[in-house]
Amino acid sequence: MYDRLKGFRDFYPEEMAPRREVIDTLEDAAARYGFREISTPALERTEMYVDKSGEEIVEELYAFEDRGGREVSLTPELTPTVARMVVAKQQELSKPIKWYSTRPFWRFEQVQQGRFREFYQTNVDIFGSSEPEADAEILAFAADALTGLGLTGEDFEFRVSHRDILGGLLRAFDADVDAREAIRAVDKRAKVEKTEYLGLLSDAGLSYEQAEAFDDLVTAGDLDEIAEFGGDDVASAVENLREVLAAAEDFGAREFCEVSLTTARGLDYYTGVVFECFDSTGEISRSVFGGGRYDDLIESFGGQPTPAVGVAPGLAPLSLLCQRAGVWAEEALTTDYYVLTVGDTRDVAARIARDLRAAGNVVEADVSDRSFGAQMGYADSVNAETVVIVGEQDLANGEVTVKDMGSGEQTTVPVEEFPGERASPTLEDLD
Amino acid sequence: MYDRLKGFRDFYPEEMAPRREVIDTLEDAAARYGFREISTPALERTEMYVDKSGEEIVEELYAFEDRGGREVSLTPELTPTVARMVVAKQQELSKPIKWYSTRPFWRFEQVQQGRFREFYQTNVDIFGSSEPEADAEILAFAADALTGLGLTGEDFEFRVSHRDILGGLLRAFDADVDAREAIRAVDKRAKVEKTEYLGLLSDAGLSYEQAEAFDDLVTAGDLDEIAEFGGDDVASAVENLREVLAAAEDFGAREFCEVSLTTARGLDYYTGVVFECFDSTGEISRSVFGGGRYDDLIESFGGQPTPAVGVAPGLAPLSLLCQRAGVWAEEALTTDYYVLTVGDTRDVAARIARDLRAAGNVVEADVSDRSFGAQMGYADSVNAETVVIVGEQDLANGEVTVKDMGSGEQTTVPVEEFPGERASPTLEDLD
Repeated sequence: MYDRLKGFRDFYPEEMAPRREVIDTLEDAAARYGFREISTPALERTEMYVDKSGEEIVEELYAFEDRGGREVSLTPELTPTVARMVVAKQQELSKPIKWYSTRPFWRFEQVQQGRFREFYQTNVDIFGSSEPEADAEILAFAADALTGLGLTGEDFEFRVSHRDILGGLLRAFDADVDAREAIRAVDKRAKVEKTEYLGLLSDAGLSYEQAEAFDDLVTAGDLDEIAEFGGDDVASAVENLREVLAAAEDFGAREFCEVSLTTARGLDYYTGVVFECFDSTGEISRSVFGGGRYDDLIESFGGQPTPAVGVAPGLAPLSLLCQRAGVWAEEALTTDYYVLTVGDTRDVAARIARDLRAAGNVVEADVSDRSFGAQMGYADSVNAETVVIVGEQDLANGEVTVKDMGSGEQTTVPVEEFPGERASPTLEDLD
Repeated sequence: MYDRLKGFRDFYPEEMAPRREVIDTLEDAAARYGFREISTPALERTEMYVDKSGEEIVEELYAFEDRGGREVSLTPELTPTVARMVVAKQQELSKPIKWYSTRPFWRFEQVQQGRFREFYQTNVDIFGSSEPEADAEILAFAADALTGLGLTGEDFEFRVSHRDILGGLLRAFDADVDAREAIRAVDKRAKVEKTEYLGLLSDAGLSYEQAEAFDDLVTAGDLDEIAEFGGDDVASAVENLREVLAAAEDFGAREFCEVSLTTARGLDYYTGVVFECFDSTGEISRSVFGGGRYDDLIESFGGQPTPAVGVAPGLAPLSLLCQRAGVWAEEALTTDYYVLTVGDTRDVAARIARDLRAAGNVVEADVSDRSFGAQMGYADSVNAETVVIVGEQDLANGEVTVKDMGSGEQTTVPVEEFPGERASPTLEDLD
């Protein structure tokens, strides 16, 4: 007997059904905005990740040398791959480029609640627009996806921030500050003690007093005050954040957003508006997912300057949020019909099953040569709504029996009239 | 600029759309038979493949040691993984177990037409029934999937064979024959010269005369003659093959089947009926996909004896078949509505877009602050059927303009009545 690898999961049908429902909801929401599905490789050259994130990223990757001597890695995220794809067909693709896809990614990291070594994300991105409407459309997609899952404004909030407000403010305190390192410190703010946080900021080049003043400003979050203090760059970033929120208002997503400048997103490549989705009740303390603008990445991959903004909800944290909110579909498998054979009636049963399937129904029939009772038990185990009993005796009278599994009631109908023109006849239709 | 790995593919939206259509068709067909979706890891322990296929399989795998010191491989096929899953929950799972899934697999092999290092398959399996109805249901699923794609009996055929007929016949010629090796030779029959084929059979232990007589028998394919010559084991295998075909007749798949005993399926783990789907016109010379019965695998994985039968259509060879038959959906992207803004009308345009999306339409709107002409050009590039022009002047009159992009005709409608109660109003509905 073989065991599964740690951090990897098998999804049996009962576990897969609600996941499929979540994926469908996310993808439907994206498709309705005109995002188009793409499909991407599971392996890429390791250098793509090293160039972007430094040699230390390799420790978190499933990286190895393939049989052709290439250094390759299982993709830990989609962004570098889509950047590569945009660069490869830059001239042909009409802008804005709007793509989505759902697939697994892999990271060699500590396994903990809601975090695995193989994890699924739905990535949704817009390339080629720097306008606030693009940021807002990403927020609106995310809001539609979550409300489509049955979540409400009571369940989640988008904490919206802006990289250039943070960066500009930090530079206003000290022109020589290491803004990237300081923003990484901001990203850790909620996870560490305040003294440690201030220490990280001073490691990045602020004095302790500057770090405290900076923290006071961003936690107070008064955008007018921040714009005034920070100078022109910060003022225009504040203006951009306000434009994004105004567009989000028109797009129906503003009600889910709150400005939260201490939300920073850990990844270095974000450039403008960034946001993270949180559980409003606080029961799930970590960010559920995040997104934002990354205007420099395509150029750093050798492409023409191409602004970009995106979001990537992960299935595991989303399922935690849905479970917390009581909207995770725990429902069991569903089956429209079980066509039960008694005696030598397979040909008629098969004809009925085929007619019902052609109308789009989920239909099971015996493939195990089982008794009436065993077939009934199986029909019950797959939650068949209706059982069509095709028995030799009934057939001799030109009839089949239709049984409603909910009520246990049944009736007989002429075999040649079943299912007839009806797509999904139930006992009610027949009585 | 980074390059893609050899044998791996990027699918842009225009390439992905027809692939998604094929996947949906296959999965819908499986779901209508009551197969249930599962999801499985991309990595497994390498020993699982070595134990099953021998050490030499490693040369074809993406195998490596992970950071925890485990020997792991990118999954080259699904069957060992589902066998592991069946064994892990053997007691809880009610039989028959009917599963499907679509996902990529990976093999380090020579890249050629229709064959890649990363390739997608839809696996469909039944565990727990040794009855001919189970084999026939797999054939019926495959037939429904292919006809669902628009293919007909003119386009494809299932060449059906039986491992125990081949094995029994071989042993009837010589009890000491290496039946596995001989069956592997039969699998190569169409790909090599006849003398080489007969040589492979004699390597497996037949004399040259026996090899010729064996080949005459299986190519003639007279089942009565074969049953008589081969003895009891062969006669009962012939009976089983006939029962499967009779069930396939009831299930509507018999018309696509022809008995072809030289079809052997290369993999060692098949045990009973096996089949391969071929292009009826012969333009695609290789098998499109195959399947069959593998009754011993679960037990060899440490489980209770559990009969099994399955099939795994691959997307790349299927797409070749569909292209050859002229049923590959080359159609471009579709968009129901483009909502065009002229001037400061974003709030109204956004309301209209949201209403149309809520009704399930694919709706794009400007996220790039573009001119009327640029928006029209974009709407055309995404094949928008209808453009809703929300202009400042029209709005002053309480109207929007609805333009049919096919005919170029347009009309104005009161803005508060659009889209109104209609889910997908077209110009025709409005005139």
